[in-house]
Amino acid sequence: MAEIIRIIGIDPGLQRTGWGIIDMAGNRLSFVAAGVIRSSADEGLADRLVELHDGLVAVIGSHTPDEAAVEQTFVNVNPTSTLKLGQARGIAMLVPAKAGLRVAEYAPNAIKKAIVGAGHAEKRQIHHMVRILLPKAVFEGDDPADALAIAICHAHHRPSLQTALRLAGRAP
Amino acid sequence: MAEIIRIIGIDPGLQRTGWGIIDMAGNRLSFVAAGVIRSSADEGLADRLVELHDGLVAVIGSHTPDEAAVEQTFVNVNPTSTLKLGQARGIAMLVPAKAGLRVAEYAPNAIKKAIVGAGHAEKRQIHHMVRILLPKAVFEGDDPADALAIAICHAHHRPSLQTALRLAGRAP
Repeated sequence: MAEIIRIIGIDPGLQRTGWGIIDMAGNRLSFVAAGVIRSSADEGLADRLVELHDGLVAVIGSHTPDEAAVEQTFVNVNPTSTLKLGQARGIAMLVPAKAGLRVAEYAPNAIKKAIVGAGHAEKRQIHHMVRILLPKAVFEGDDPADALAIAICHAHHRPSLQTALRLAGRAP
Repeated sequence: MAEIIRIIGIDPGLQRTGWGIIDMAGNRLSFVAAGVIRSSADEGLADRLVELHDGLVAVIGSHTPDEAAVEQTFVNVNPTSTLKLGQARGIAMLVPAKAGLRVAEYAPNAIKKAIVGAGHAEKRQIHHMVRILLPKAVFEGDDPADALAIAICHAHHRPSLQTALRLAGRAP
């Protein structure tokens, strides 16, 4: 029986951070859970970052993933948005790393390519394919779908790493 | 005898995060400690954010400040630098907030004005004034000096808050 690797994908944002967790057994992927961590716009920045931090700590604590993948942030044209996103992304990288998980990063195009087979797919194509690849997935809205797409992308890149190691004689 | 308030100023950066701690007793300021937390450019981003996080947790744990102040980041013209700075700044805001400290933010011009009296002072003027305002300060390089300037700025803005509350009849 293939070893089960549990992967968390994270789509960071100050207002909404999507997360999605899948299990990978050999080539088989299955849905575990997905959701959104929201921070209240009424609060100060530091308190919003704490909300995001505590939310991610709780998700990782309940679902105990083995590996994490975070989207390589699209560098926004608006510097203020880029800075906000950077702050949220800092927390999204920190929490799994503090929990001892390896944190992989994938560019948006790599994620699209892993899911749809093309680097310039539309959002709804991605979400459609996420539902096909994970038929039992239960989630609402774009953020968990994006997070699941990131987790699937990591699952697709993982075996190629294994294959590379095997070819190099460093893995069974 | 005036109550002593201990303030930590933080100047965030992915490569180097400066920190400086002062005590405020009435109008008197005194130097407590200052330093830099460095992260190694050889490591992955997540590990660098963990280094920054753990360094700040250690500093706050040893010196137990009451309040924190962080520079409102200069929005860099280079989006990649802005994103990196944002990620470091997220950690610099998170750690004191998680430790229960109120985290104030000050624009670079407000900091310059509090130290030198003008919003467009040069860096070396700031550092010169930090050494005059805190004659016993021991530190090396620009980052701790900037962090101490942020702490002094917060100390200067704090009493005006007290005065405002006193005028409003809400503080003794």
